[in-house]
This record gives sequence, C-alpha cells and structure tokens, in this order.
Amino acid sequence: MAKLYVVGIGPGGREHMTYKAVEVIKASDIIVGYTPYIEYLGDLVEGKKVFSTGMKGEIERCKVAIDMVKNGKDTAIISTGDAGLYGMAGPILELAEEIEVEIIPGITSAFSAAAELGSPIMHDYASISLSDLLTPWEVIEKRLENAAEADFVISIYNPRSKGRKDHLKKAVNIILNHRSGETPVGIVKNSGRAGTEITIATLDNIDYEKVDMISILIIGNSNSYIKDKRIITPRGYNIK
Amino acid sequence: MAKLYVVGIGPGGREHMTYKAVEVIKASDIIVGYTPYIEYLGDLVEGKKVFSTGMKGEIERCKVAIDMVKNGKDTAIISTGDAGLYGMAGPILELAEEIEVEIIPGITSAFSAAAELGSPIMHDYASISLSDLLTPWEVIEKRLENAAEADFVISIYNPRSKGRKDHLKKAVNIILNHRSGETPVGIVKNSGRAGTEITIATLDNIDYEKVDMISILIIGNSNSYIKDKRIITPRGYNIK
Repeated sequence: MAKLYVVGIGPGGREHMTYKAVEVIKASDIIVGYTPYIEYLGDLVEGKKVFSTGMKGEIERCKVAIDMVKNGKDTAIISTGDAGLYGMAGPILELAEEIEVEIIPGITSAFSAAAELGSPIMHDYASISLSDLLTPWEVIEKRLENAAEADFVISIYNPRSKGRKDHLKKAVNIILNHRSGETPVGIVKNSGRAGTEITIATLDNIDYEKVDMISILIIGNSNSYIKDKRIITPRGYNIK
Repeated sequence: MAKLYVVGIGPGGREHMTYKAVEVIKASDIIVGYTPYIEYLGDLVEGKKVFSTGMKGEIERCKVAIDMVKNGKDTAIISTGDAGLYGMAGPILELAEEIEVEIIPGITSAFSAAAELGSPIMHDYASISLSDLLTPWEVIEKRLENAAEADFVISIYNPRSKGRKDHLKKAVNIILNHRSGETPVGIVKNSGRAGTEITIATLDNIDYEKVDMISILIIGNSNSYIKDKRIITPRGYNIK
C-alpha cells in the first residue's frame, strides 16, 4: 500500500537534512511542495514527478498529495524546517482518511538560527509566529505578553511582511514592558541555507527595515548576554 | 588550528541525525559526551579517542573538550537532541576563550515526539523543563502558569525523576487552571530511538507512574483534538 510522508527538510541546506528525510525523498514516487522549497532539494528530486504551487496553496497541495497516495503512489509532501511547527503535518492529518501517514521531523529554523547565533535559547523558550493570516492578532499579543512576563527566551517566526510592517515593532514594545532594552536579539536571514545573514542587536536598536519574512528572531531572556559576537543564555551551571 | 564542535545528535536513532552531525563526528579526533549518549553513536566513534562521564559531569566534560582543542585536537562534544536547548552549547560558549567553536543543530526531542504523536505542536508553543536542579521551582511554576494562560502548546522536558516525583502533577494542576481536563497529552518514552513507547492521554487521566526522566510530554492547546490515535493541533486553515 502506498504511503504519505510529511517531511521536514530543515532550513534548506542539504547538510542539515536528516538521513531519514533524504531516504524518504529518494524512495518516494512523487514530491509535493511550495515551489522555492522544492528548489532546495536540487538533484534529490531529479527524475521524480513534482507537484509544486506558490504561496497560500497549502490546502491544495495537501489534497493533491493525499489523492496521489490514494492512486497508489508513495508521496512525500515537503515542509521547510520541521513539518510539525507552522508546517504541513497538521493540515495533512486533518484531511487524511484511510491512508497511511508518517511524519519525518526536521531542524526548525529557530534551532538553526540559534546555532548560528551562539547559544541564545538554551533554557525554557516560547515560539511565536507574528503572522495574523490564520491567528487573530489579539491572541498573538496575549502570547507575547505572557512569554515576556515569564522570562521565556522568545523565537519569532514570520516577523514582518509587506502587508504587516508594524507587527514586529508592536511585538518588541510588548516585550519591553517586561525586559530591558539591552536584551540581546539575534536576527538571522536565510538561516541554515545559502545567503545566511546574521545580525546581533538589542531590543532597543533593531533595524526593522532589515527584517523580512525569511528572517527569524531570537530574543534573549533576562540573563542572556553578548560575548565575542555571540548571544549566550546561561542555564544556571556554576561555571567556575 | 583545531576546532571544537558542539554537536546535537538528535534523539538517538541514526536516521534522525543530520549529515552535518555525522560528518563532523567522523572528522573529529576526539569525542566527548555523557556515557549513554556516546553509546547511541555506535560504530561512528570506532577508532576514536572517547572521553565520557556520567550524570552531572557536564562542566567537567566541557573543560576537557576545551583543553583537547587547545592541545591541537579537533574535538566533538555531544548533546542529545539539540545542543542549544538544555544542552552543551551554553556552557561551552561560557567557558571557551580563544578557540574556534561551531554549534551543529539537531532534532530536539519535542519535535521527534511530536512527529510520533501526530501534529500536536503545529502552532505557537512553549518548552519548559521541570528540573529544578539549575532553575528555582518558583520560576518554573510561573512559566507554566503563563504558558497555560496564553494557550501555548507546552512541551515538558525532564518531567519526573526519583527525587522529584510530584513536579509533573503540580505542573498539570497549574495547567488545569486554564485548560480543560479533556486536553490531549502525548507522552513519549525513548522518542526517536530504540524502545519508543507512545501514550496518548488527557490532562485528567495521565498515569504518572509511567512517566520518567527519559519521557517527554506534549500538552495540546485549547483547539487540540485526538483523531485515529493521533493528536492534532489545527493551525487555523479552512480545511474544507
């Protein structure tokens, strides 16, 4: 019986894919995904049937992938990062009936960016997407407020798009209610793939114009600090 | 010049390691790590010098690894999961002076467990460790309270040890102040490696005796539900 694999390919660079993700893509008859993500796969998809669509085609892609499995084809539907965080695993499982589905985990961009920035996460943390396409902005604000109050390290996905230029500034202002302006902020564009750009800033001096939808931010907790151009969040070990 | 690699090896199974992690371990002269984690590496460390210690030897291992690099040996210090979450990246960067350090990201157990459970994370989420060895319990309680109030999916690391049998029950009671007893809870022991045991429960019917330090819990948000023995958290797409 054919099977549907929901595959997190990691941030885009082949070196951060898992063996399982590569094996599953090689073994699948058909690859389904958002066009730019298919391009990250390069020669891995050579000779395979590919179905790709542009932005906002998520549900269409899910339905096509499920149909292909029902037609007897082993199919891999691709997410960047981890398919289970803001990815394709959820809608596939919501839609799938009577077919076998396996989810393959991948490196989500917060961990890719953290490795590039030093060790900014290290401790309890919260992940928040600033996209209000699917989530009311009031819910997002409430989560920012609570995460800041509890002193979580905060990773921010989808920080800024053309249609929502002000969300990130609003988010930072909420966090500033609970955290010093000196708090380190790491901003990584194209984390874990070609064209990586790393910026280390503080809550008080973020250059908002440089942040876009393919950036991820990691905001330190009250103990985070900058050393040798890296952000470190201590876990509490007695280091001496 | 020799280099120190801080390597997240993922949850333990070779298939969930990244190409970069395997490549770096193969290229290193010396491997440093907690004894059980070195065992996950199997033949990857054959022929290599290995320095391993037991629990609570974290800072000793970091110092040994740094010394080895200073003596000219390329060295890999191993964390399970991702080295930048409750792992070795932080203490290494706190201690390292005048040596080159590179952090290699890995699949953290929350994402491994999520893939095994269905799609329980999918949306904004918070990661909390219940270990109070390095973090005051009051801080942990505050984070649980805020995460529950903000309707984050919550992943719980280090849920229960022999010395802290009651932490998980206390944590669940805090979460129950804000979330229904029907909320799905996924419990995975040995996620992503040999001996995986998956349990799907609700906040009201967790079997606390079955949870141990090598378990991870994922607690759904107010929209999470169970379908075909999997936990699904919808992101908000109109699925019809």
